[in-house]
Amino acid sequence: MRVVRTVAELRAATKELLAGAAGSAGSSGPTGSAGSIGIVPTMGALHEGHLSLVRAARADNAVVVVSIFVNPTQFNEPADLDAYPRNEERDTRLAADAGADIVFAPSAAEMYPEGFATTVSVTGSITETLEGASRGASHFDGVATIVAKLLLAALADNAYFGAKDAQQVVVVKRMVADLGIPARVVVCPTSRDADGLARSSRNVRLSAADRSRALAIPRALTEVAAAVGAGEFDPQRLRALATEILAAEQIEAEYLAFVDPESLVPVTSTHQPTLFALAARVGEVRLIDNIELRDGAESA
Amino acid sequence: MRVVRTVAELRAATKELLAGAAGSAGSSGPTGSAGSIGIVPTMGALHEGHLSLVRAARADNAVVVVSIFVNPTQFNEPADLDAYPRNEERDTRLAADAGADIVFAPSAAEMYPEGFATTVSVTGSITETLEGASRGASHFDGVATIVAKLLLAALADNAYFGAKDAQQVVVVKRMVADLGIPARVVVCPTSRDADGLARSSRNVRLSAADRSRALAIPRALTEVAAAVGAGEFDPQRLRALATEILAAEQIEAEYLAFVDPESLVPVTSTHQPTLFALAARVGEVRLIDNIELRDGAESA
Repeated sequence: MRVVRTVAELRAATKELLAGAAGSAGSSGPTGSAGSIGIVPTMGALHEGHLSLVRAARADNAVVVVSIFVNPTQFNEPADLDAYPRNEERDTRLAADAGADIVFAPSAAEMYPEGFATTVSVTGSITETLEGASRGASHFDGVATIVAKLLLAALADNAYFGAKDAQQVVVVKRMVADLGIPARVVVCPTSRDADGLARSSRNVRLSAADRSRALAIPRALTEVAAAVGAGEFDPQRLRALATEILAAEQIEAEYLAFVDPESLVPVTSTHQPTLFALAARVGEVRLIDNIELRDGAESA
Repeated sequence: MRVVRTVAELRAATKELLAGAAGSAGSSGPTGSAGSIGIVPTMGALHEGHLSLVRAARADNAVVVVSIFVNPTQFNEPADLDAYPRNEERDTRLAADAGADIVFAPSAAEMYPEGFATTVSVTGSITETLEGASRGASHFDGVATIVAKLLLAALADNAYFGAKDAQQVVVVKRMVADLGIPARVVVCPTSRDADGLARSSRNVRLSAADRSRALAIPRALTEVAAAVGAGEFDPQRLRALATEILAAEQIEAEYLAFVDPESLVPVTSTHQPTLFALAARVGEVRLIDNIELRDGAESA
């Protein structure tokens, strides 16, 4: 397990490990495609959700890179950036235990050196709505730019993202396809605690009482999915149901969106495949979650 | 020599040719680095300038790709896009004769399929000035986006550009470095006709009389360089000299810029390395040209 700080070190390390993997082909090496590189881009503060991505990458690739970079350009609130938890030593140990070969933990100056002037933007419906509307258009510019850089830095064949950040997944897929970055975007199911709360690095900032109140969020998702299963296809009535469930815990959503899973344009009926996505503050902590509603059946 | 229309075909063709090149290593193959891919991005209408880039790529790489794509997103005037000369059969023959292995000639729908939503933007001084100011900010967004796509489509190790498009070179270098696209940007000297006119696909649209008048442009460059060599370092007086030379042929420049070759910020003295760049219409045809002034000596 190596920790590298620069793109040059990262490429040298992946090259060396790939050469080693090729040398031991047929032996007890990983089961992944010969010579493939997988990356799990993270902002650190690793939890079981990230680790499930690392394990998925381990199963598919000869070399697994976990990047840890708290990307300043995707934060719209300086306070949120400052409050973002950082513990590289712990993260590195967890990544190694889950099967990572390399942790790429660059400085901001490595990723955005003086004179840096390039932005990758995904425009239109998929970035203007939901998180884009709440956090400002520059949020997804920040995401698209850093993901492009990380995939290219690792020369990744496969890149792993969690379904919890549904809009991020849509934006990243669009960007990778549009630019023709030679990597496959792999989406893994949202990882949840036993009580249903989606795992997030922000959860540690919830008070015990707020942690309990926050369970209204996964409850709203599953009850909406159950209502669709029982024949309710009207987004307005489904939204009212979710609003009521959240209100019982004094939670007011920033948005409760019923949208097409690819275009993120609002649907008029959940007869069609629908992403139900929401954002809400619980105490000081902003949480997001989502569920896909397909043919009246749920799928996390 | 193959002509391919899609990114998938391009990658399959380069892979096959690389495998062939590796199989015949040590034999009479090209002198390029083992396994490297070179790309010469063009908008077709190939002339000796492009062919000098193809020959440079041939000397350096195992596989040489010439892309021919009249990129609609970098034209600010629809009439200019419509008037841009197209002759794929001739271009393909010329590219093959100069040593290309593959011509990549995609459709607009292949490069910008329905739903395409991603833009690569280089912001700040290097795109706001000169051509960016004359042609609008979206011009270099179009250039940066298509060049990123072409380099990634070819999985290019080396990409060849002519010094005539000086600002394009600065923008492309910045974009490639900022995103970490794993390709080297190679800049080749401006190719000129015997009388000094920089080769351009637009030159065929000059009338005989305008073709002759247009020689005031390279004359302005060389006389300015000579004046610097003789001890004139003041951009204002050098600009007046160039203006006078152009005016003798009734040519009024759109801009006559003395700028830092990296940042494109105006210089106050040509004691420092300076790019002297100009744009001017001669008849209906907009021409650009430039010269680098270094330590009082010229370099094309």
